[in-house]
Amino acid sequence: MVNETQHSCSASSSSKSDGGSSSGSESSKDSSRCSTPVLDADRHERLREKMRRRQDAGDKWFSLEFFPPRTANAAVNLISRFDRMGAGGPLFIDVTWHPAGDPGSDKETSSMIIANTAVNYCGLETILHMTCCDQTRDDITGHLQKAKRLGLKNIMALRGDPAGEEWEEDVDGFNHAVDLVKHIRNEFDDYFDICVAGYPKGHPEAESYEADLRHLKEKVFAGADFVITQLFFRSETFLKFMKDCQAIGITCPIIPGIFPIQGYHSLRQLVKLSKLEVPQEIKDVIEPIKDNDAAIRNYGVELAVSMCRELLDSGMVHGLHFYTLNREVATTEVLKRLGIWKEDPRRPLPWAVSAHPKRRVEDVRPIFWASRPKSYIYRTQEWDDFPNGRWGNSSSPAFGELKDYYLFYLKSKSPREELLKMWGEELTSEESVFEVFTCYITGEPNKNGHKVTCMPWNDDPLATETNLLKEQLEKVNRRGILTINSQPNINGKPSTDPIVGWGPSGGYVFQKAYLEFFTSSEIVTALLKVLKKYELRVNYHIVNVKGQNITNAPDLQPNAVTWGIFPGREIIQPTVVDPVSFLSWKDEAFALWIEQWAKLYEEESPSRMIIQYIHDNYYLVNLVDNDFPLENCLWQVVDDTFELLNSQTQQ
Amino acid sequence: MVNETQHSCSASSSSKSDGGSSSGSESSKDSSRCSTPVLDADRHERLREKMRRRQDAGDKWFSLEFFPPRTANAAVNLISRFDRMGAGGPLFIDVTWHPAGDPGSDKETSSMIIANTAVNYCGLETILHMTCCDQTRDDITGHLQKAKRLGLKNIMALRGDPAGEEWEEDVDGFNHAVDLVKHIRNEFDDYFDICVAGYPKGHPEAESYEADLRHLKEKVFAGADFVITQLFFRSETFLKFMKDCQAIGITCPIIPGIFPIQGYHSLRQLVKLSKLEVPQEIKDVIEPIKDNDAAIRNYGVELAVSMCRELLDSGMVHGLHFYTLNREVATTEVLKRLGIWKEDPRRPLPWAVSAHPKRRVEDVRPIFWASRPKSYIYRTQEWDDFPNGRWGNSSSPAFGELKDYYLFYLKSKSPREELLKMWGEELTSEESVFEVFTCYITGEPNKNGHKVTCMPWNDDPLATETNLLKEQLEKVNRRGILTINSQPNINGKPSTDPIVGWGPSGGYVFQKAYLEFFTSSEIVTALLKVLKKYELRVNYHIVNVKGQNITNAPDLQPNAVTWGIFPGREIIQPTVVDPVSFLSWKDEAFALWIEQWAKLYEEESPSRMIIQYIHDNYYLVNLVDNDFPLENCLWQVVDDTFELLNSQTQQ
Repeated sequence: MVNETQHSCSASSSSKSDGGSSSGSESSKDSSRCSTPVLDADRHERLREKMRRRQDAGDKWFSLEFFPPRTANAAVNLISRFDRMGAGGPLFIDVTWHPAGDPGSDKETSSMIIANTAVNYCGLETILHMTCCDQTRDDITGHLQKAKRLGLKNIMALRGDPAGEEWEEDVDGFNHAVDLVKHIRNEFDDYFDICVAGYPKGHPEAESYEADLRHLKEKVFAGADFVITQLFFRSETFLKFMKDCQAIGITCPIIPGIFPIQGYHSLRQLVKLSKLEVPQEIKDVIEPIKDNDAAIRNYGVELAVSMCRELLDSGMVHGLHFYTLNREVATTEVLKRLGIWKEDPRRPLPWAVSAHPKRRVEDVRPIFWASRPKSYIYRTQEWDDFPNGRWGNSSSPAFGELKDYYLFYLKSKSPREELLKMWGEELTSEESVFEVFTCYITGEPNKNGHKVTCMPWNDDPLATETNLLKEQLEKVNRRGILTINSQPNINGKPSTDPIVGWGPSGGYVFQKAYLEFFTSSEIVTALLKVLKKYELRVNYHIVNVKGQNITNAPDLQPNAVTWGIFPGREIIQPTVVDPVSFLSWKDEAFALWIEQWAKLYEEESPSRMIIQYIHDNYYLVNLVDNDFPLENCLWQVVDDTFELLNSQTQQ
Repeated sequence: MVNETQHSCSASSSSKSDGGSSSGSESSKDSSRCSTPVLDADRHERLREKMRRRQDAGDKWFSLEFFPPRTANAAVNLISRFDRMGAGGPLFIDVTWHPAGDPGSDKETSSMIIANTAVNYCGLETILHMTCCDQTRDDITGHLQKAKRLGLKNIMALRGDPAGEEWEEDVDGFNHAVDLVKHIRNEFDDYFDICVAGYPKGHPEAESYEADLRHLKEKVFAGADFVITQLFFRSETFLKFMKDCQAIGITCPIIPGIFPIQGYHSLRQLVKLSKLEVPQEIKDVIEPIKDNDAAIRNYGVELAVSMCRELLDSGMVHGLHFYTLNREVATTEVLKRLGIWKEDPRRPLPWAVSAHPKRRVEDVRPIFWASRPKSYIYRTQEWDDFPNGRWGNSSSPAFGELKDYYLFYLKSKSPREELLKMWGEELTSEESVFEVFTCYITGEPNKNGHKVTCMPWNDDPLATETNLLKEQLEKVNRRGILTINSQPNINGKPSTDPIVGWGPSGGYVFQKAYLEFFTSSEIVTALLKVLKKYELRVNYHIVNVKGQNITNAPDLQPNAVTWGIFPGREIIQPTVVDPVSFLSWKDEAFALWIEQWAKLYEEESPSRMIIQYIHDNYYLVNLVDNDFPLENCLWQVVDDTFELLNSQTQQ
């Protein structure tokens, strides 16, 4: 008889929902299955579940702590850093709460807005710190409600440093972190995952180490899900603390806080604030090299690596929390040397996902925003539903207007001077614009010797995948087919392919060839004649800034241009060419000429007038070759167009 | 500038819905696009639109009239005839209304139920006739409401023959067909397409030909959408009638009713009922051969073909309506000779679609019912929503119980005696059951010389596609892997492929290899050991009648096993292996052993006990090979299983 049944379940229990047991599953009431394909289990789990799953699987992980920036420019840089350090695969990041910096406000430098940006625009699991002393119950509830609205799911509950010199309890207020933990659980039930702070040497204000352990136990028993510790200098300190915690019944995860020493002054400052004592053996090494930043950093990295190794080798530690001080080099170095920095070239989907819980089911987007995912997220932030499986089913095709080009998370990483160097201090003709596009494609310096590493439609260098088309792209850009988006056709490559792969392993990915460009009305006229020959094979949309729109798309239906087939799952089709949203994209794509490029120049200047002319007169064109198993015919379409133009010129 | 713009539309107009203009489009209010992929425009149009589109395209078409059967057995035969004649591509069929036969009842021989079966189970566009004389307003409204509920969308509004000898107007009732037309439009607005009868020679009771034309005009102006005429014997009769209609302002389609003479007696009877006169030249031919049925039919076919050619050649006629008298041969012959019988091997979807308007969006089904589409439609008839694009989104996975195995449209086409000949008058062992399965696969006669042309799980001979797997299937059935469903893997064949193609042309279709079978617990035990080697490649579900269920499907997610990629459209994935609905299918598949097979034998007979044993002890297994681009590994899995069993036996 059957007795090797690892996955056995009775009919009655299997007709209950497995999916339904994961909190927040949005399965229909009548349905006994999950409504979404769960391509990426991570997207559906809350932080404490991810932590448990990693621990069960024996996977070591890390997390990164940042503080909010002081200026808008620093915010732009911090967001780039989130993107770069996010690539290493942190389990989460956290953003500290700066009472002095209006932390719950909508300012671009507030804790709240930085955390919001990390979750929504960088797709990072994020913990927002929150302190409670010197704040009213209503203030705190307001902050928590706002955090929830923005899609934040995790709170680090802290007391914070009181404003005055001496600590006085407020009978009606929040006096300890435990009060905040209780308040969150009372008001928001189980919505948030809650983290609390642990002090391996005891809190400096605690009566005793033992008393502090009891405080920690109170916080955990009040509803905290895990603990992150204050920094420490010796692994024994943490391991003893952890054993002591376990001895009094604290069983939740306790994550050691790691501080790689990065400089003499930052160390002194931190020690002063945290009232910790630096061990003599460390002082002995540092004092003699205190003016040599590189030497101190190297020493700090060595020290952190060896301490982390001891922690991991103990078998008691599964994750490491890094106090980055908003710097990249030392932490990244430590993580790489520990082997837990994992740049996974595989992507869950071909585009950058957002970590907002309401976007959990999102698995289809129009291809147009492929290089501008943050703008796409911004313009769809008010949507209640996100397309899942099929774009045609979306009930929210109304895109928000993009007016705030200068929101720090939508803004170019490069300052105006650099953009001018790349895109030309002075433009003399449409051809000088063609050259900018061409240099961006080739990676060669422009005539003034500057490389063009970004464009208004793409703030990053050319994607690896686009490199596959480089030669062809160069040729057409030189002649005034100004490409802003493209993909090659792919006929069933493994989902683990380092360049075009995405999704879980064991699958196959497919693409239809896509080409999107601005071009003159003269070229469009020739192109349309050529396209008649390709009527059954190529779908096109051609539109100008005024909205004059020419297409052969049947019934305004979306065309799937990227899809994947995976074991045991339904088909995933993450990108489509959608005729309706193309008209929203058109507004954004044309506006970028003006907002990002023309406005670099004086009003009425020839350079500005050239860009304005292109904006007013060029067409935005997209082409899809439906015959994905055959050789991409779009280059032939473009060649035929140039040939037709040539023959007309010669006549 | 751009001036060759055939498909031009302004931005503002193109953001309005094209899809929305087609009546009944269920696009979301917020959405500016159609919610469904419109793979097959026909499914979304009402009859009058289909008629117009065919006429605009210059496509000639035909339709077929049937009357309800007298007995349940005749109903089974009529449904088979619907399936066979439906294959020729009629634009619609119509079912006459027999006041004497309780036409609006739930009896299997009623007009209402036959029309319901044609629409829902045979997927045919259907017109239900309805007469109004001698009926109350409430009766008629009740019939219309029921027709609407069943998915009928078209009514042929007739007066009908009064019960008494002499016709007397009922002041308060329905005296003429026009009253019924008005009533339908008053009570049901534009829901139904309405057809009315025209009399090329004038209605026998009309004061004059001209008066009858005026009556017809009244019916059309009251809201009829098109006219079908009484039969006639000369094309001039119809063409004159049509011109006379047009002359008085009747502009809707007028479809000639064609009656191929099929026998002497049926002609005499029809002539008597319709009070028509048979032209002398026809009588002269028929009388001498009146006892030679074949000769009369041949003559009738000749006559009909030449008359139809004259009608079509006139340029005034686009469709032909055939009075079939529920017979196939003559009408099919005429249609084939006219070249308008079009057996299109291409299918809009891989399974038989239903014509009920609420199933218009349906484009995903579990593969299990592939050979039992009528049962699937029956078990899902109460669903409000149908899966569109993704099975996982279905909000109606609750299958109705299948208790009514003997409903005429679910019943086997073969009578008990024939089934016994095919499946064995007497079974002696499990092996004699294996042999029945094997003979069904090979098409070879069984040991008593009878071919096995159907099985309890499949009422038709083996599908062409399954023939691709014939050799392998034969081998495994002989050894007790009793296959009931399978498909080969397909890696991107053209959608026009005559064997595996479906959907519009220009696309590519794909399949994962699938195998479903009953087998003993001994084989299952070995199979499970073998499947461990294929864990990442093969998904399996194994269940017995009690519901003991073994699977490696991740999170009970459906696995897409058939999908198609088409120009300008989203991905279509019409069949899935769904772990949840497999348990509903399991009940049906096991019950068929008893209901269709065991019950052929006496209770307590050895034959019945063998089937009962299999029902109680065997497992139902399905296997999917996820690696569709590679060679199907499922045969290897089965071979490995047999090898393991052999090695165990030898020990």
